[in-house]
Amino acid sequence: MPFLSLMHDPLAGTLMLLALLWLSAKVGGELALRLKLPAVTGELAVGLALTVLHRSWMAFPDVAASPATELLGGLGVVVLMFAVGLESTVPQMLKVGLASLRVALIGVVLPMAAGVAGAWLLLPQGSPFVLDLFIGACLCATSIGISAQVLREKGASHSVAGRIIVGAAVVDDVLGLLVLVAVSGLVGSASGGSAGPNLAWPLTLALGFLAIAFTLGRLATPHLFRLANRFRSEQVLLPLGLGFAFLLAWLGNLAGLASIVGAYAAGLILEPAHIEDLERRERRTLEELVHPLVTVLSPLFFVLMGAKVDPSALFKPSTLGIAVVLAMLGVAGKFVAGYGSGKGTRAAVVGWGMVPRGEVGLIFVATGAQLHLNGAPLLSADVQAGIIGALLLTTVAGPVGLGWVLRGRKQA
Amino acid sequence: MPFLSLMHDPLAGTLMLLALLWLSAKVGGELALRLKLPAVTGELAVGLALTVLHRSWMAFPDVAASPATELLGGLGVVVLMFAVGLESTVPQMLKVGLASLRVALIGVVLPMAAGVAGAWLLLPQGSPFVLDLFIGACLCATSIGISAQVLREKGASHSVAGRIIVGAAVVDDVLGLLVLVAVSGLVGSASGGSAGPNLAWPLTLALGFLAIAFTLGRLATPHLFRLANRFRSEQVLLPLGLGFAFLLAWLGNLAGLASIVGAYAAGLILEPAHIEDLERRERRTLEELVHPLVTVLSPLFFVLMGAKVDPSALFKPSTLGIAVVLAMLGVAGKFVAGYGSGKGTRAAVVGWGMVPRGEVGLIFVATGAQLHLNGAPLLSADVQAGIIGALLLTTVAGPVGLGWVLRGRKQA
Repeated sequence: MPFLSLMHDPLAGTLMLLALLWLSAKVGGELALRLKLPAVTGELAVGLALTVLHRSWMAFPDVAASPATELLGGLGVVVLMFAVGLESTVPQMLKVGLASLRVALIGVVLPMAAGVAGAWLLLPQGSPFVLDLFIGACLCATSIGISAQVLREKGASHSVAGRIIVGAAVVDDVLGLLVLVAVSGLVGSASGGSAGPNLAWPLTLALGFLAIAFTLGRLATPHLFRLANRFRSEQVLLPLGLGFAFLLAWLGNLAGLASIVGAYAAGLILEPAHIEDLERRERRTLEELVHPLVTVLSPLFFVLMGAKVDPSALFKPSTLGIAVVLAMLGVAGKFVAGYGSGKGTRAAVVGWGMVPRGEVGLIFVATGAQLHLNGAPLLSADVQAGIIGALLLTTVAGPVGLGWVLRGRKQA
Repeated sequence: MPFLSLMHDPLAGTLMLLALLWLSAKVGGELALRLKLPAVTGELAVGLALTVLHRSWMAFPDVAASPATELLGGLGVVVLMFAVGLESTVPQMLKVGLASLRVALIGVVLPMAAGVAGAWLLLPQGSPFVLDLFIGACLCATSIGISAQVLREKGASHSVAGRIIVGAAVVDDVLGLLVLVAVSGLVGSASGGSAGPNLAWPLTLALGFLAIAFTLGRLATPHLFRLANRFRSEQVLLPLGLGFAFLLAWLGNLAGLASIVGAYAAGLILEPAHIEDLERRERRTLEELVHPLVTVLSPLFFVLMGAKVDPSALFKPSTLGIAVVLAMLGVAGKFVAGYGSGKGTRAAVVGWGMVPRGEVGLIFVATGAQLHLNGAPLLSADVQAGIIGALLLTTVAGPVGLGWVLRGRKQA
């Protein structure tokens, strides 16, 4: 049938895959809701199920390997964090700044210490100490996307606890960067390489980006959007707003931070006063315009996160042991960190909100997989799968716990 | 600086590129508006300018070669045609059906005849007649995306003329498929290959898809969305609506039609009555939810179309001669076809609306580039560049002419 290939659109397969992902994500989210779990846990489970389907029936599309899902899901979490940033302002964040700082500091030190201790106990004697240190480091960085989604689902993203969580996640990202540089440097020195790690430069860059964004950026933004207000074109608010967010995400990444931190900063900086004329002209607020994009793109991110789980590596007894112990230590560490924000329900909400470790932890593991100690790879295949398993367990435990304490709070 | 690569997000470059594209598309659109041209012509020009920039300064990103832009722009035109379809219903389209059919038939026969005559005059004596026929065929298929965008810009997409244009473009796509199969088959037979082309099968498939979509699809849709209405999840309308559109786009493409025809059919089939409960619950209509996606994605499509122009192939005198003559014949043929819909302004609006030939014509050229006649390639490099040039000229002439007659109509 030559005419079939004549008119075949290279995009057609992607269209089918996206239709499948949206449908299954919504069905999975619905099932999770009926089980009184956050919808996002259902989306993660759908991703895992799709990968299992692909493994057992090769004709089924491989979601985890689709560049289209990778791109759209990646954009999804960036847009999600921009939307979360739009819900708050810089002064509001400064108010919770100290609490966020405390939560972030405890939430990096405790899980790392617990992880090091756990690794020291679990791993065979004679394992190098930098390996324990590295495993601890993998447990310290919070992945904020999932908690942000749960907070939005429950209408709690502009609560004080919600702000503390997101603020702590930003501090966390700076600290995580430093830990990664430090531990990688220590592995290098232990291997007889260069001198100890130099933390001054990455710290300067990361803090410099944030400082410039929140001072110069905040001063320049009103002028930029006032310029845009002189446009006669319609529909400029959303493309320019997103362009601004993506620009800061890119710059933040150049400074060593995760892209989502830059996008979140862009949302914080953009205040209603800067864009109210444009919003009036387009009869929609920027938040309302961004919302449909989040609705469509962020489920792809969560399904993709689930799809990237390797079911065969996860369900091995030896791996599972390491994974469960590390996950429990990781959850405990972050849960205690929640008390840096106060006590009672707020501490529990903040603690559970910090629990998920996702893409940032995976970056750590990917980095560790490339490190060598005295010629041998730092991470064995089993240890690597164990850490990944622990990250996944926290990724599912986080939204479940957060959904649970938020529901409890509503009923109280 | 090893830490830079440690935390480098592979998506960062794409974020920067998208920010650049949105900003430049909006600036280009604004300049076009100030010159009293439709914004979309400015976006096409921006694309061309970005490619010229890349050619002269290699460090500048190559927009035309970016897989991310390709994907997002491709999704953009599919979402755009879904949105256009949502603005009309099947009964409304049936009312203009005969007029659309007349416009489409004249608009395929006339430009093809004119193109064949033009090619016969322009090309050196002794060129095979199937080549003339092929060149004529390249001029027959309308690319509806651009006109749809101009009609939306001017608030005329639900006017009678607007409906006739889009309806004619759907018929056009079926006819274009047949012409492509027929001419490719003739080249095969002229080359001493198989027997003449078999048109029955592609025609059955294409019409079968449309018939099933508009009967079974229309019967099943209310039930499907009533099922979705029983979901407790929030934000189901947009993912499910888009999923439905992408599914039909994929099926339509399997049946040999362009993806945008299937997406448009999905929009026509989905009627407010089917989804009013969901729309009430989410306090937004599906059209309102799709709108921000169109705003963000469709400029990427038009910038990409402009960026794909090869400036060096276009600006050669010999090529330019063929391009200008073919473009004039193509414009004249479609303009006359407009009178199939009535007379006066409506005829002019419909005629100009049918003028742009974009991606469908390019598919024809790409197919022709792979055809061989007695061992030699059917299209020489010059002829190929000439046809592409003609397609581009119509692509710019179309929105300019359409904007012009629509403005005239408003003032009258």
